Amino acid sequence: MGPLTDRALALDAADPLAKVRERFVINDEFVYLDGNSLGRLPKATIERMRSVVEDEWAHELVLGWSHWLDIGLDIGAKLAPLIGAAASEVVLCDQTSVNLYKLAVAGLRHSGRTDIITDEGNFPSDRFVLGAIASAAGGRLILAPEDPTAADVRSLATTNVGLVSFSHVGYRSGAMLNAAAVTQAAHDAGALMLWDLAHSAGAVPVELNAWGADLAVGCTYKYLNGGPGAPAFLFVSEALITELEQPMSGWYGHEDQFAMAAKFIPAGDIRRFVVGTPPIVSMVGADEGIRVTAEVGMAAIRTKSLALTDFFIEALGTMPQHGFTLITPGGHEERGSQITIQHPEGYRISLALRKAGVIPDFRAPDLIRFGFTPLYTTFGEAAQAADVLDRVMSSREYEDFEAIRMGVT
Amino acid sequence: MGPLTDRALALDAADPLAKVRERFVINDEFVYLDGNSLGRLPKATIERMRSVVEDEWAHELVLGWSHWLDIGLDIGAKLAPLIGAAASEVVLCDQTSVNLYKLAVAGLRHSGRTDIITDEGNFPSDRFVLGAIASAAGGRLILAPEDPTAADVRSLATTNVGLVSFSHVGYRSGAMLNAAAVTQAAHDAGALMLWDLAHSAGAVPVELNAWGADLAVGCTYKYLNGGPGAPAFLFVSEALITELEQPMSGWYGHEDQFAMAAKFIPAGDIRRFVVGTPPIVSMVGADEGIRVTAEVGMAAIRTKSLALTDFFIEALGTMPQHGFTLITPGGHEERGSQITIQHPEGYRISLALRKAGVIPDFRAPDLIRFGFTPLYTTFGEAAQAADVLDRVMSSREYEDFEAIRMGVT
Repeated sequence: MGPLTDRALALDAADPLAKVRERFVINDEFVYLDGNSLGRLPKATIERMRSVVEDEWAHELVLGWSHWLDIGLDIGAKLAPLIGAAASEVVLCDQTSVNLYKLAVAGLRHSGRTDIITDEGNFPSDRFVLGAIASAAGGRLILAPEDPTAADVRSLATTNVGLVSFSHVGYRSGAMLNAAAVTQAAHDAGALMLWDLAHSAGAVPVELNAWGADLAVGCTYKYLNGGPGAPAFLFVSEALITELEQPMSGWYGHEDQFAMAAKFIPAGDIRRFVVGTPPIVSMVGADEGIRVTAEVGMAAIRTKSLALTDFFIEALGTMPQHGFTLITPGGHEERGSQITIQHPEGYRISLALRKAGVIPDFRAPDLIRFGFTPLYTTFGEAAQAADVLDRVMSSREYEDFEAIRMGVT
Repeated sequence: MGPLTDRALALDAADPLAKVRERFVINDEFVYLDGNSLGRLPKATIERMRSVVEDEWAHELVLGWSHWLDIGLDIGAKLAPLIGAAASEVVLCDQTSVNLYKLAVAGLRHSGRTDIITDEGNFPSDRFVLGAIASAAGGRLILAPEDPTAADVRSLATTNVGLVSFSHVGYRSGAMLNAAAVTQAAHDAGALMLWDLAHSAGAVPVELNAWGADLAVGCTYKYLNGGPGAPAFLFVSEALITELEQPMSGWYGHEDQFAMAAKFIPAGDIRRFVVGTPPIVSMVGADEGIRVTAEVGMAAIRTKSLALTDFFIEALGTMPQHGFTLITPGGHEERGSQITIQHPEGYRISLALRKAGVIPDFRAPDLIRFGFTPLYTTFGEAAQAADVLDRVMSSREYEDFEAIRMGVT
């Protein structure tokens, strides 16, 4: 054990969140640093899913809807304080890209304009969906540089721009934007601001209302540990809710769902952004994941997240450079909960890491992402990952792997 | 026991599907005739969901995507023969209304026209979503009478109509349309035909390709027993797949999902209609429900469905009229797997039935629906439901309930 490991053990011993790790199923098969792609299973989720299936579905059958009908609102209310929103502004429903589509169409229509600004490094679905929306509106998608700033928004905004949409934390770099400044720049340009919180919710402090944000979407299967493909959330600021009309006007969004009315009258609250029946078993996964996060609180999570990523950056600095470029910003204010390194052999290196028991995430063409999930990631794991990375590079054992493209969600 | 019950017992004894009931969790708490809203829990689903959570998610974590990435295509291929489609034409993803939106927008754009025909009795989400799409296209939604015919399509179609969309089996009446004739009428008008199979899939024979259908959507939580809110399916006929561009261009629909490409290039197959990451735990529920249905086969299911509904209609005929109107058509070719009766006191009657242990479904303002799910509904249950209905009406015990509106999905 080197000095890095010693320090890691000391940090783990002093970690106030150490006990939270016990709330997750962990078998130490490997060092898991991909919670920014799929979070771990909370133990409570097992019993909750069993109960929703074997007690509620099996025995209450259709009467189970007495528990399930408002589940998206109930979970949204639980999530709201974690993202700086009011309970009435958040709902769980559909998948992230579908929610992005609903809110972006509604927001752009409301603006009366045609163009949308996003950035080159935004997640593909966001770029694709926003591009199709701008195009359908007769406008265009304007691309800011990756990890954009308020100044980028100011220099690109025209009077045609009705919507600005970025990821608060970049999925590639792990960089965190200055959300308040960017939102202000969007507003100064007369545009609405739509945040994608996929890599933020449960990972970093989010203050939607303090930022002045109009719209947001995000997923629950990364840092919120909701399970594979667990449903997404959406946020609409209170003042805008009744101003917006989303394009998929399903019965759940009607002001009187069970009236089976002739005409669509949108609900006067956040329900108007819900379309149809949600997938209940996956929904309760999101509920349990959010519950653990809410109980711990974002302040403690952020403190440990920064300590973990600081520690890992320091560990990277103690090894030979190995041809890596650290692309995650060093400043605390500019960093999410993931560290990304760039290397031309990134794909083969990630395979070698996996074989050696460390699970990072690879993103084409050359990025290796290490996700740090404060609820269950230990400093010991961070130290071990750094050791293994150093060994894989020094031994060049990654050259044993074929250089084909790989990807996971 | 009256002669009705005797006959029911004899029919159950001779029922070739009697053993299939044992594949579901059934505790005889009540006579469940609401499988047309939420189907029962297959026993195999319990272990499958446990395994996907406790084996795959917990221990494989992100590597579980090796099982999950194509799950929508895999389940679609399993469902395809049950709806008369090729495996390459069907995929599971999102919820029914979201899929309806994707296909209706794509279909209407492809037609180059602006108007859509649906019917007054179609499910609210369908009417609402289609209305919003026509309106956004600068056109209008034209309403045929409830339970429409090919003649209705012919009389309403104009050269502006680009899409016709009906439910194959009406959620109110349980009437089944002549799908081949209606599809032909839509095509004769130069329009595409989009079927909603929510009350058809797993309930009645569906022959999408034999009908010449262009597009279809449907849900898996009714007769397919996929669990509350289990994800929906969509169908696009082979020749149209690469002709259509759906509006929500997420990364799952890209021809090379993990390339994280700059530009959206839609997949050359049914994947182009998928948006993002599916809710895996709910997806495997759909998979298991479809598996049971596929193993039994639609021919046997239809035979028993007609026998059950014939029996229940006959039972209704043996009791005093009680002020009911039977609104489900009598002819086999015009009937789904549900019997609907209309009564001004329908809401209170449905509450009284529930209290007496019979679970039907109420739809505002005055319809009581009895769903017959051949995989697990017995003739004995049909007889018991008829007996209880007769008693509730004769005793007027429904008058004990408050006349407020009720609804379940």
